[in-house]
Amino acid sequence: MELEFIHWLREHVPDRPCAELGLSDDAAVVSLTGRSEVVVTTDLLTDAVDFQLGTHEPQRIGRQALAANLSDLAAMAAKPLAAFISIALPKNGCASLNALELAKRLYEGLLPLAAEYEVAIAGGDTNTYDGPLVLSVTAMGLLTGPGPLTRSAGKPGDWLLVTGTLGGSILGHMLDFTPRVREAISLHGKYDLHAGIDISDGLALDASRLAQASDGGALLYLDRVPVSSDAVRLAEQENASDISSAALQHALSDGQDFELLLAAPPAAARAILHDRPIECSITHVGELVTEPGLWQLGNDGQRRPLEPTGWRHRAL
Amino acid sequence: MELEFIHWLREHVPDRPCAELGLSDDAAVVSLTGRSEVVVTTDLLTDAVDFQLGTHEPQRIGRQALAANLSDLAAMAAKPLAAFISIALPKNGCASLNALELAKRLYEGLLPLAAEYEVAIAGGDTNTYDGPLVLSVTAMGLLTGPGPLTRSAGKPGDWLLVTGTLGGSILGHMLDFTPRVREAISLHGKYDLHAGIDISDGLALDASRLAQASDGGALLYLDRVPVSSDAVRLAEQENASDISSAALQHALSDGQDFELLLAAPPAAARAILHDRPIECSITHVGELVTEPGLWQLGNDGQRRPLEPTGWRHRAL
Repeated sequence: MELEFIHWLREHVPDRPCAELGLSDDAAVVSLTGRSEVVVTTDLLTDAVDFQLGTHEPQRIGRQALAANLSDLAAMAAKPLAAFISIALPKNGCASLNALELAKRLYEGLLPLAAEYEVAIAGGDTNTYDGPLVLSVTAMGLLTGPGPLTRSAGKPGDWLLVTGTLGGSILGHMLDFTPRVREAISLHGKYDLHAGIDISDGLALDASRLAQASDGGALLYLDRVPVSSDAVRLAEQENASDISSAALQHALSDGQDFELLLAAPPAAARAILHDRPIECSITHVGELVTEPGLWQLGNDGQRRPLEPTGWRHRAL
Repeated sequence: MELEFIHWLREHVPDRPCAELGLSDDAAVVSLTGRSEVVVTTDLLTDAVDFQLGTHEPQRIGRQALAANLSDLAAMAAKPLAAFISIALPKNGCASLNALELAKRLYEGLLPLAAEYEVAIAGGDTNTYDGPLVLSVTAMGLLTGPGPLTRSAGKPGDWLLVTGTLGGSILGHMLDFTPRVREAISLHGKYDLHAGIDISDGLALDASRLAQASDGGALLYLDRVPVSSDAVRLAEQENASDISSAALQHALSDGQDFELLLAAPPAAARAILHDRPIECSITHVGELVTEPGLWQLGNDGQRRPLEPTGWRHRAL
């Protein structure tokens, strides 16, 4: 199948001036147009953990694998440049698709996303084996604005802002989400952001990670968390006794929201909330505090510890 | 296991000035020290195809995964800079090792190689799942000498030179080989090389790939092919009726030699063979010709077609 797949790829993967040789040589040469720093991220997605092959269409899975990487670049406010796609294909394919057809469908899902964000598919490695589908994508981007947006430069008193709505991504958002690349670059270019992270493992866990990296704690206002309609729907499907409480729990701890959590000084945060300069919603959900740990603000105005439960603990 | 693994990684993965943030943020920032072009390669290795978990020690497998990428950089005469390591771990580990121990052993194998070649381990993604071990490594390097050494700039009349000896890598070389990074950079800096490829799928197949990329054919002098002692040993183990013929066949078509095949104009090739400027052997095994295809030189001085059999057809 492999030679046929190479031909298919060469026909379907568009040339981009920043990347040469990738599909025809041992390695790609990626031109950074005069920049000397590059942002690189990698995500590995496996069947039955990140997606369900057989339930989810391969196109959506392929799109998801690239989108997860673009979300990591967004968390650094980096402009996507090139991606490298490695796939371990089950040798018998899946259901009615043989391995070659499966590989093509995966690419058919990710290529439109690559085109939308002007990402060069600059290389990869596709092999068959006796195991479940595994996708490993490595994406490169260029710094924008005043430098990389990191997790570690948040300061006590910073407001915590979150894009979009949270929770229940398992109902479909985990596959079809919009990586917040444009939003991150736009905000980082116009406003004084201190820190950022993409919410891949739940607001609670990722807020605690950002706070810890910034040598402090995070206080979340639970009544302001933007709960998605999917989180509510999931709570209803589970016949939860208290739907709104169960939906909030999903918003706090479900994985794969792929929204941005940003820390900005109050003046900048107020300006963002006033200007609403991005297409998606943005919500003030908490603040960074001096005390390490994750905290919630109770109805009585008191801080109480909040468990940083999250969907998945990534190893690296 | 994951938090423990992050701590273990932070203790064991040395800081390198070119790469920041990788193990602690959403993405790494890799500094290219003023260069604006980067060479990127990616390889995906799977259990029972590229290695045998349970037979081969995890340390050797981890080393192999990084070394295969360094060999691709060597094929472009690029200087390795940073690598990103993604691992899909069988959730139950293997034999007596749990998944965490398995991950550590893989890293224990690749870290010394990274140190030897001054490669920053700048990021990665390690997850457990219900499937066989899969390693996906993406490596970045910087161009050296007059620019990238590619497959496509060979010319008819160029001599074909090969480093080391070939065949029988399944007896151990496939795991413990030396990526020819130093050799490639040294030769590319001092001599006029036209084209290069690393021999990952057998001399016959990779020579035909280089020739095809250079819009020509390749003629191999079969009596000059440097047959490894492992190729002979393998032929003996197989009780081949003609040991030397069977060993030659291994040298032509076994995969994972990870030696360099270089095309250089005769004057440069003669100078290399005279100077012997690298530590390993280098042998004149053929030439590029105008006629497309792969050819062998018979004892009667006549060209005959040679089948480009190879160990594995990579898809991309």
